[in-house]
Amino acid sequence: MAFLDNAGKWKEDSVDMELRFGIVGGGLGGFIGKVHRQGAIIDDLAVLVCGCFSRNEEKNRATGRKWHIKDESRIYGDFREMAEAESKRGDGIDFVSIATPNNSHYEIARCFLEHGINVMCDKPLALNVEQGIKLKKLAEEKGLMFGLTYTFTGYAMIRQAREMIDHGEIGNILHVVAEFPQDWLIVAQSNDHSDQAVWRMEPEIAGKSLCTADIGTHLEQLIVQMTGLKVKRVLARFDTYPRTLPLETNTTVLMDFGDEISGTIWASQIALGYECGVRIRVFGTDGALEWSHDEPGVLKYTKLNEPTRVMRATRDYLYPESRRLSRLPSGHPEGFFEAFGNIYHSYCEQLQAKIEGRKAESYTYPTIDDGIQGLKFIDACVESNKNGNIWVDVE
Amino acid sequence: MAFLDNAGKWKEDSVDMELRFGIVGGGLGGFIGKVHRQGAIIDDLAVLVCGCFSRNEEKNRATGRKWHIKDESRIYGDFREMAEAESKRGDGIDFVSIATPNNSHYEIARCFLEHGINVMCDKPLALNVEQGIKLKKLAEEKGLMFGLTYTFTGYAMIRQAREMIDHGEIGNILHVVAEFPQDWLIVAQSNDHSDQAVWRMEPEIAGKSLCTADIGTHLEQLIVQMTGLKVKRVLARFDTYPRTLPLETNTTVLMDFGDEISGTIWASQIALGYECGVRIRVFGTDGALEWSHDEPGVLKYTKLNEPTRVMRATRDYLYPESRRLSRLPSGHPEGFFEAFGNIYHSYCEQLQAKIEGRKAESYTYPTIDDGIQGLKFIDACVESNKNGNIWVDVE
Amino acid sequence: MAFLDNAGKWKEDSVDMELRFGIVGGGLGGFIGKVHRQGAIIDDLAVLVCGCFSRNEEKNRATGRKWHIKDESRIYGDFREMAEAESKRGDGIDFVSIATPNNSHYEIARCFLEHGINVMCDKPLALNVEQGIKLKKLAEEKGLMFGLTYTFTGYAMIRQAREMIDHGEIGNILHVVAEFPQDWLIVAQSNDHSDQAVWRMEPEIAGKSLCTADIGTHLEQLIVQMTGLKVKRVLARFDTYPRTLPLETNTTVLMDFGDEISGTIWASQIALGYECGVRIRVFGTDGALEWSHDEPGVLKYTKLNEPTRVMRATRDYLYPESRRLSRLPSGHPEGFFEAFGNIYHSYCEQLQAKIEGRKAESYTYPTIDDGIQGLKFIDACVESNKNGNIWVDVE
Amino acid sequence: MAFLDNAGKWKEDSVDMELRFGIVGGGLGGFIGKVHRQGAIIDDLAVLVCGCFSRNEEKNRATGRKWHIKDESRIYGDFREMAEAESKRGDGIDFVSIATPNNSHYEIARCFLEHGINVMCDKPLALNVEQGIKLKKLAEEKGLMFGLTYTFTGYAMIRQAREMIDHGEIGNILHVVAEFPQDWLIVAQSNDHSDQAVWRMEPEIAGKSLCTADIGTHLEQLIVQMTGLKVKRVLARFDTYPRTLPLETNTTVLMDFGDEISGTIWASQIALGYECGVRIRVFGTDGALEWSHDEPGVLKYTKLNEPTRVMRATRDYLYPESRRLSRLPSGHPEGFFEAFGNIYHSYCEQLQAKIEGRKAESYTYPTIDDGIQGLKFIDACVESNKNGNIWVDVE
Repeated sequence: MAFLDNAGKWKEDSVDMELRFGIVGGGLGGFIGKVHRQGAIIDDLAVLVCGCFSRNEEKNRATGRKWHIKDESRIYGDFREMAEAESKRGDGIDFVSIATPNNSHYEIARCFLEHGINVMCDKPLALNVEQGIKLKKLAEEKGLMFGLTYTFTGYAMIRQAREMIDHGEIGNILHVVAEFPQDWLIVAQSNDHSDQAVWRMEPEIAGKSLCTADIGTHLEQLIVQMTGLKVKRVLARFDTYPRTLPLETNTTVLMDFGDEISGTIWASQIALGYECGVRIRVFGTDGALEWSHDEPGVLKYTKLNEPTRVMRATRDYLYPESRRLSRLPSGHPEGFFEAFGNIYHSYCEQLQAKIEGRKAESYTYPTIDDGIQGLKFIDACVESNKNGNIWVDVE
Repeated sequence: MAFLDNAGKWKEDSVDMELRFGIVGGGLGGFIGKVHRQGAIIDDLAVLVCGCFSRNEEKNRATGRKWHIKDESRIYGDFREMAEAESKRGDGIDFVSIATPNNSHYEIARCFLEHGINVMCDKPLALNVEQGIKLKKLAEEKGLMFGLTYTFTGYAMIRQAREMIDHGEIGNILHVVAEFPQDWLIVAQSNDHSDQAVWRMEPEIAGKSLCTADIGTHLEQLIVQMTGLKVKRVLARFDTYPRTLPLETNTTVLMDFGDEISGTIWASQIALGYECGVRIRVFGTDGALEWSHDEPGVLKYTKLNEPTRVMRATRDYLYPESRRLSRLPSGHPEGFFEAFGNIYHSYCEQLQAKIEGRKAESYTYPTIDDGIQGLKFIDACVESNKNGNIWVDVE
Repeated sequence: MAFLDNAGKWKEDSVDMELRFGIVGGGLGGFIGKVHRQGAIIDDLAVLVCGCFSRNEEKNRATGRKWHIKDESRIYGDFREMAEAESKRGDGIDFVSIATPNNSHYEIARCFLEHGINVMCDKPLALNVEQGIKLKKLAEEKGLMFGLTYTFTGYAMIRQAREMIDHGEIGNILHVVAEFPQDWLIVAQSNDHSDQAVWRMEPEIAGKSLCTADIGTHLEQLIVQMTGLKVKRVLARFDTYPRTLPLETNTTVLMDFGDEISGTIWASQIALGYECGVRIRVFGTDGALEWSHDEPGVLKYTKLNEPTRVMRATRDYLYPESRRLSRLPSGHPEGFFEAFGNIYHSYCEQLQAKIEGRKAESYTYPTIDDGIQGLKFIDACVESNKNGNIWVDVE
Repeated sequence: MAFLDNAGKWKEDSVDMELRFGIVGGGLGGFIGKVHRQGAIIDDLAVLVCGCFSRNEEKNRATGRKWHIKDESRIYGDFREMAEAESKRGDGIDFVSIATPNNSHYEIARCFLEHGINVMCDKPLALNVEQGIKLKKLAEEKGLMFGLTYTFTGYAMIRQAREMIDHGEIGNILHVVAEFPQDWLIVAQSNDHSDQAVWRMEPEIAGKSLCTADIGTHLEQLIVQMTGLKVKRVLARFDTYPRTLPLETNTTVLMDFGDEISGTIWASQIALGYECGVRIRVFGTDGALEWSHDEPGVLKYTKLNEPTRVMRATRDYLYPESRRLSRLPSGHPEGFFEAFGNIYHSYCEQLQAKIEGRKAESYTYPTIDDGIQGLKFIDACVESNKNGNIWVDVE
């Protein structure tokens, strides 16, 4: 990946890395598989060599062909078969990407871990904390890497925010306000588009939560990655519309982070006028930061008694940790694919370093610990809501 | 007041109205007195004829002189004296504006009501619900009008929103999100500007709440006026910074409006990057509305499955109830003074109609019932916070 | 007028000033009279004591009554009569405001000057440069003040921009881009609202230019007041729509300011989507400034190699010259009336100082020299366009 | 490429296409090669199989390796060698992408055309019109396709705008205003980053124009593709800063499109505060459209007498021609890579159809005719500026 260093020269990192990976799920007829694949290959750190993209054999083959898998024997009809076969090959995959609905994450991830294969998994990690802890133990026993694609944490300006916070540029954090309104569900219901992701509304597949697990958890992780804070306890309120749905579609969560730091999350899937409206504001004693997904290359910074500064991706005035997550000169927008790419980039860098037995640079990505924390957060929210919106510890 | 009617002609209303009024408080050296006076006179419906602007005699006289009070005997040193003298004059005031700190509202309002004089009072109405109810009873007994200047409710596009909601243009309301971040307090503390409104931080003067009573209550009333909903119960969380202050500076409130309609308020006086950042979003089954104080002449409207529309003040496509709250052609910004002016305009129209024994047109303004509701809201928030953030009914 | 000084205290200026003024034109049934009156009285520096508001006697009287002119004999049926009568009174007016259509400015202004009365005139100053020069000579002979209400120059953030430029904060100016799109004319034509300002389209009343004289000239003056530059030569292109109109409705002007500084103006009255969309950008060697009428309390400042700063009215970090043009705490929007008010404020301050024989502080307002420059600019544009879009000197 | 069809289902097009291509130029150490490669492969319609990426042998090899060219013999040291070798292979490339500095485009393109290979070329097509016409003749003789990557034309919302205009949704076009401010050059000069693209400032390499050829031409093509208009004549003004540079850095162009349709282009490389600030506004008799590169997924549409609508990529209410240029659900930002991808996508679709002897769907991309028109535009601007800013026909 080429990025502009502080001398204004394009610097290329990891020129000779070429990891091998496969994908489970994400076949043609959706977009999430493409996002994972694109994220993994955009910086040419990894090559897709196999997959098990769909239970529908025709779609499975078509996807493999489309994605240039030359050896048809590596388009597998079953993920277990894939894990086994790949683990036995000399040129087997270095990691697997899991892009299936929530309820299968656990089983698939466990299977690949058991076969000694590193995992990158779509969020949420699993259906419950117990599953998450089992996966963690297994990964640790096997000495394997486990990453999670909390997309929004991959944006270059979120990394900039984290560096600024760590360098004390906003003082002590006082309050965090994060929101994720979208209109997806109310529009899908009205248009009978609901088939496109109907599984998200089914408790058996999605788990015990819809809105909180699907998008609220993105906010929780965004806060964690952007600020370094951890959610200590929550008070959650769920609303459901249409009223007949089994799971919630609108979530408000009050949070404590310890040290008298408080915050609020609002996630909604019935918010007309919003599509993927993630926005986060962090208020400190000496400054504040604000980021919105509408213009992901922008970070607003207000220092006490000074005008708000509108910081933009790639510029010289950013921290190097942020600058090297941009592939293009300033003003050339990067988007969702590239944010995914940044998470994969960090994961691949770490994995390559591990393979080579050296310490990687400070690239970061959401780990299985973050994934477990995310599940605890969902659990605590569900429990809080069920019990009349009381405070519940996230543990 | 001239406004553009739907035929694109300037129409003047209430040409010959000339009510007389006085002000208590608001002397030179602050801005709130000017806001009240300007609000009352901007459309030439009322004339300032007397006042008791300051306990400092020199400032009192200077203010009266500055504001063209010709008869110096009507610059009173004491509000009681003013109420008594004015009530006895044949050309005494039709109403009094109260622009003093919170803790004196009750006493002053009561005094003028007892002397048969209509009242326009800055918010909050009083220090507690009991005081509010007493004032209401007194006003009713005396047959007097009592208005409250919840500024934000005066903007023309808030009136447009109300008409749209009443006409079903967003379907059934599902969720309301309102916020009022400002940096006033944290900046004032850092700059030692705290003298400018230090009384707001003193429980004896401000009452039992700082942030909720000062600005949270603006949001509550904005919701009431914009949507027609009433807050049924609240769950409030207060934060305080600097930690040594006796009252809260950051407030989050979960709300129930009945009929499974929910909402959230966030008000903060330590939010760097914001000045008077009122923003309200109302989500319904068929549409959504959004208004922000940063561009008060704009209302965003999203209908299900359609692009967001950016509606602008004065335009032909607005309801007449909104259009007649604009004094200028579209694109000529009106601001805070004019929003105050709209509340006074409605109040004066009603008062004139009352004096003439006729029914006024549908102009509206926040009444003493709204003021009492606002006090109940504050009380319920304080109680909820004190008891560990439990639900408390607003009644 | 109260404003926040740098110690965060409200400071009141000119407490005891009370100039007397009258208005010619601007009667009820339009909005421009109200704007002038409100501008003149908003800070209580002047009192309206007479006027000749309309040739329609009934409207004339109604306006005077509405605007609290107590002495009916000072509601004049003819401006000449007004000039004569007022000039003879001991308590005659200190200045007159002229709010009539363009073609009568010259005659009215001359009449009042001849009677020894100071003038504040709506723009443009007159129909041609010759008239302007005559007025200037007359004002000088008589030792009278002559101001012009180029509204946009009155905004507090324009004053801030000027101070920043004068203090070298953007280095040497390289290029200026200013625009004023509005949809007024195309909307008026489509809705048959054209009666509201039909005179603007009549060459006999409006002069030899429509769009350039009506709004292009606002941009020229805005540049002059904001930057201190003067337009040396122009190359103008006019377009007309509807094609049948006698005067232009869309204007583009290339400009030279000398010293290799260039610029462009675009003004349009057929720009759907815009209402009063003034926007100006000044690019220098070390920084750039940007102001838009949509958010008049904001000024964007970009220093070379730094993030754009969003400066806001009233804040401590502004120059005092800007701060004292704000009446309200930061975040409380002031608009068109207050911008007018700032021009009148400066004019009245200067006038009072002149009356008292002292030097006024540095308040500024557009003078007759600016007005003449504005007429020369219009002339040069008309000539350039007529001759195939050639360069024409502004002199 | 998967996109959401109007029934809300993901549809995949061109599943089995797999064109072969090579790149000349664009080696590691810059970003433009990556943009071309990513654009060509993002939808898996083409595979990079060879290249001649740099005259520096080491960089050439490293680039080939990085980009997974398995057969090292297809990493060529010379473009002529590449053209010859590839033209002789049975599995030779279907097209070549040219990503070198301006002055070599002609020679390289000619060479590949002569060897019967289709071309996709970075803009501008060549250094002068004569070269362009020769290339066109050659391509026609050989029956080859020739595309140009005018990036901004690839955005999905530009395609939406074109469909709306073609369907009469803004009536007859009256005026077009397009701008492209950036701070690249002034920042590079100040930071001594000028090495990153110093060739752009050298007439021998860049041609006779800097700002106009580099970015002004983007605006010209954007207008052409978005509106269907052609520039008939221009009046251009160039400014240069730093004054010592041989070529212009700021360009203003008045344009005629015939039928009394006018327009203006402003392009600047010294505009502090802007990075890649392309913005285009098209005003018609019944409506107006506005697009800005800052939020490329948004198109603003104002219909006469209606509020501005904010249209967003991927939504159901868009034309299918726009929808199928989005790979992600609404609200998931796509950026510069994907815009490039859309141009390549259209080119590849057409090429595949040509290979298969069938008519392609209506995908469009900028052709050699557009490229020649772009060169004529630059020529005419240069001539206009040289001759004192006179009108020059574009022919």
